[in-house]
Amino acid sequence: MVYFAFHLYGQRLFIMTLYVTLAELIGSRIQQGLYLPGDRLPSVRALSQEHGVSLSTVQQAYRQLEDDGLVEPRPKSGYFVPPSRQKPALPMVSRTAQRPVEVSQWDQVLELVSTPPYGDVVQLGRGIPDIEAPTLKPLLRSLSRLSRRQSLKELSYGCVEGEISLREQISRLVLDSGCRIPPEDIVVTTGCHEALSAALRAICQPGDIVAVDSPSFHGVMQALKGFGLKALELPTDPLTGINLEALEMALEQWPIKAIQLTPSCNNPLGYIMPEANKRALLELAQRYDVAIIEDDIYGELAYRYPRPRTIKSFDEDGRVLLCSSFSKTLAPGLRIGWIAPGRYLQRVLHMKYMSTGMSAQLPQLALAEFIGGGLYEPHLRRMRSQYARGRELMTGWVSQYFPAGTRVSQPQGGFMLWVEMPQGFDSQRLNRLLAPHKVQVAPGSIFSAAGKYRNCLRMNFAPKPDARQEQAVRRVGETVSALLAEQETGLEEMSVR
Amino acid sequence: MVYFAFHLYGQRLFIMTLYVTLAELIGSRIQQGLYLPGDRLPSVRALSQEHGVSLSTVQQAYRQLEDDGLVEPRPKSGYFVPPSRQKPALPMVSRTAQRPVEVSQWDQVLELVSTPPYGDVVQLGRGIPDIEAPTLKPLLRSLSRLSRRQSLKELSYGCVEGEISLREQISRLVLDSGCRIPPEDIVVTTGCHEALSAALRAICQPGDIVAVDSPSFHGVMQALKGFGLKALELPTDPLTGINLEALEMALEQWPIKAIQLTPSCNNPLGYIMPEANKRALLELAQRYDVAIIEDDIYGELAYRYPRPRTIKSFDEDGRVLLCSSFSKTLAPGLRIGWIAPGRYLQRVLHMKYMSTGMSAQLPQLALAEFIGGGLYEPHLRRMRSQYARGRELMTGWVSQYFPAGTRVSQPQGGFMLWVEMPQGFDSQRLNRLLAPHKVQVAPGSIFSAAGKYRNCLRMNFAPKPDARQEQAVRRVGETVSALLAEQETGLEEMSVR
Repeated sequence: MVYFAFHLYGQRLFIMTLYVTLAELIGSRIQQGLYLPGDRLPSVRALSQEHGVSLSTVQQAYRQLEDDGLVEPRPKSGYFVPPSRQKPALPMVSRTAQRPVEVSQWDQVLELVSTPPYGDVVQLGRGIPDIEAPTLKPLLRSLSRLSRRQSLKELSYGCVEGEISLREQISRLVLDSGCRIPPEDIVVTTGCHEALSAALRAICQPGDIVAVDSPSFHGVMQALKGFGLKALELPTDPLTGINLEALEMALEQWPIKAIQLTPSCNNPLGYIMPEANKRALLELAQRYDVAIIEDDIYGELAYRYPRPRTIKSFDEDGRVLLCSSFSKTLAPGLRIGWIAPGRYLQRVLHMKYMSTGMSAQLPQLALAEFIGGGLYEPHLRRMRSQYARGRELMTGWVSQYFPAGTRVSQPQGGFMLWVEMPQGFDSQRLNRLLAPHKVQVAPGSIFSAAGKYRNCLRMNFAPKPDARQEQAVRRVGETVSALLAEQETGLEEMSVR
Repeated sequence: MVYFAFHLYGQRLFIMTLYVTLAELIGSRIQQGLYLPGDRLPSVRALSQEHGVSLSTVQQAYRQLEDDGLVEPRPKSGYFVPPSRQKPALPMVSRTAQRPVEVSQWDQVLELVSTPPYGDVVQLGRGIPDIEAPTLKPLLRSLSRLSRRQSLKELSYGCVEGEISLREQISRLVLDSGCRIPPEDIVVTTGCHEALSAALRAICQPGDIVAVDSPSFHGVMQALKGFGLKALELPTDPLTGINLEALEMALEQWPIKAIQLTPSCNNPLGYIMPEANKRALLELAQRYDVAIIEDDIYGELAYRYPRPRTIKSFDEDGRVLLCSSFSKTLAPGLRIGWIAPGRYLQRVLHMKYMSTGMSAQLPQLALAEFIGGGLYEPHLRRMRSQYARGRELMTGWVSQYFPAGTRVSQPQGGFMLWVEMPQGFDSQRLNRLLAPHKVQVAPGSIFSAAGKYRNCLRMNFAPKPDARQEQAVRRVGETVSALLAEQETGLEEMSVR
């Protein structure tokens, strides 16, 4: 029974229910294309025999898949893969500058991060997970209980490396992505921001060049700017990630210090770089002796199961600095991230110390309890399935409410949709026009060092879909249409003159 | 009634009891030398008439002063200033390199910050306040209550600037140090570490020179190292701080970008720079057009009342970046600090964003409740008085248990004692020798960019004094004596050969 293999670490075996495991197995087969749209799926009886489980377990699994929109029952015929819907076209492969550039766009980022995500604005722009799941409650209870303790362990400085009980849990978690990292090779950080920032500073000096996927996370873009580093934006495929030929040419041409990328459940494009590409990228890094800063913050939210392997899991000489956090899987307000810096451990420790000294003890202790208690994985399962459904719905809304010709990413994990309007569209004014409607999106340009992707935007589908969400997306679509019409008229007028 | 003037901000007027105000007034007169050791203090009746308060209020005030060790009653004669005890000599004015140097000493700092401050080691080395006071409980209750809330306000990202309710409270608090800073000019940070680090990066480029007091906080030394900045250590008087003539000469000679110092309740020396010196330093900074990074983290823990003014309070052109936190006054584990960056606000915001994105919401919200509820000032009063007593006791222990010739700082606030052994003593091996006795101190060399002060160490007198504390200080003294004897024998042997 192969589907147990991934649950043999620690106590998770006892928590994972059989039907969920089975549902995930069938679901991943559908998503991998083993069953095609319209195909009839194995009967309940056949699956029961194949996997040695009861009929009702199989039925439960099929019910969950039905909830997830992955199968549909037909009376007296069994379960089928739903006929494929017409999907919007994918965004185009980015055309990048092919030379290192200095980063701009801080004003636009500041506008986004100065708006608190609570209040009456529908915040489609920021990377905030759904924090309302009941599976999060035990974590809050731990936090609340530990907060009352008046002792040094909770209230004082910890070690600069972070709380050992949490590092032990992280060491167990990374097994799922194929990594064996002992706790002493992990440093707890104040969110993934600090992890990425410490990684960049541990490797680079001002003026150095860092190769990045493009579009790319604006936090990294701004860190490059802040440290005086240059970004070399690489053409990136919306399904497979960084173009490796382009990377090789760049490595040949420029003195690149590090490659920074988000290969699993990319932000903002949502792709998972195929394993072969991950290996090939690592080989290139070895050949040209550059470091890899791997952002895996969304990696545990891959819809397919088991979760994708990290580049770090193939790393043999410690050149990969793996960065992550609990901000996307649990709650950003915890401000707890981590880094496994490989051979750069000592440098990273110094950078961590000088930027914040230590990270807060309380959330670290609560997280260690939560994960150690076997409560993290069930929460992840719930969120993965919610976000997979969210993707379907928001993709549908964009098809419905955005102008024809709009292209949309096909995220394979996480909760972000990348939307590409026709060339010539300019999203810079969009948020100002949306402000009276209390909606905010992330303009595409902040995901590029050079301010490209002005015809793009990113939206968040994490919250449970409801009429308010749909209304917000509809508003964005209508505003985009109006703006596009206005811009086209403007262009016509200009050409008439 | 002059002693009310400092309590007219907000609701604190109603919390401050009359007898405490009176006790603080008399106490500050004694500490300022208006009454000398052995002097008879005004009678209860005289004070009652002078201040228009009841006899029992005066008696209560005197009882508190008696508890603080500042007055002693003599039967039928009234209250007297206790005869002065023989105080140990002050540390010598530092002799510094007088040229910019690169920072070293990371290994020693790492040793200190890798030891968790809980467990069975008496941690005299780290800057940890006493976190056991009952006046801290309401903060923990707020934290616990807010931790249970499953809402975006607590669990998501806030704004990059920090929670507005907390910034409003900080804006009120800084009035006490003579500053008028609106909430929108304050940025919340992850501890004072991030504030100092963001300040340095907002102003300096790698290779730049920063003038610092010496000895100086090791966190700043390491930040200078991390950013590739050079430290120009200035001779510093153990009672009045940076030598201004030396500073002027340095400003004349070197292209200094910023002056970084802790002028109020200095760490590690404990002095409060006189107001005239603060003004003169600001004038120098204006004349040579350099920025001032003012660390005020211990400023609210001045034993004298009212608390000293900050350099920032005299600043008219926004060149002072005032950095502080609640780590020393409440609890370091909160990891909440702040910066008022003056004209550098935009740069500092960018640096804060790239280092941690945002600071955690929960502790910010709990702090805003605690301070807004008028609970901060009573806590500060309690801690100030406890630390003042701690200083007396630890100074006494050092006189008793350390070898003759040991010099000791006379802190005017905070909870750190700087101890200087005879020249030639080397504290580098001290912690290794103390390890079996479960005691740790901070070796002097980490407070210098160039690794000076090897004959010094810093000890913390924050915890309520008890036999275990005394035993630990005694151990340090004995170990110092043994090491000194050994080192002297070694020297003699070397000279005999």
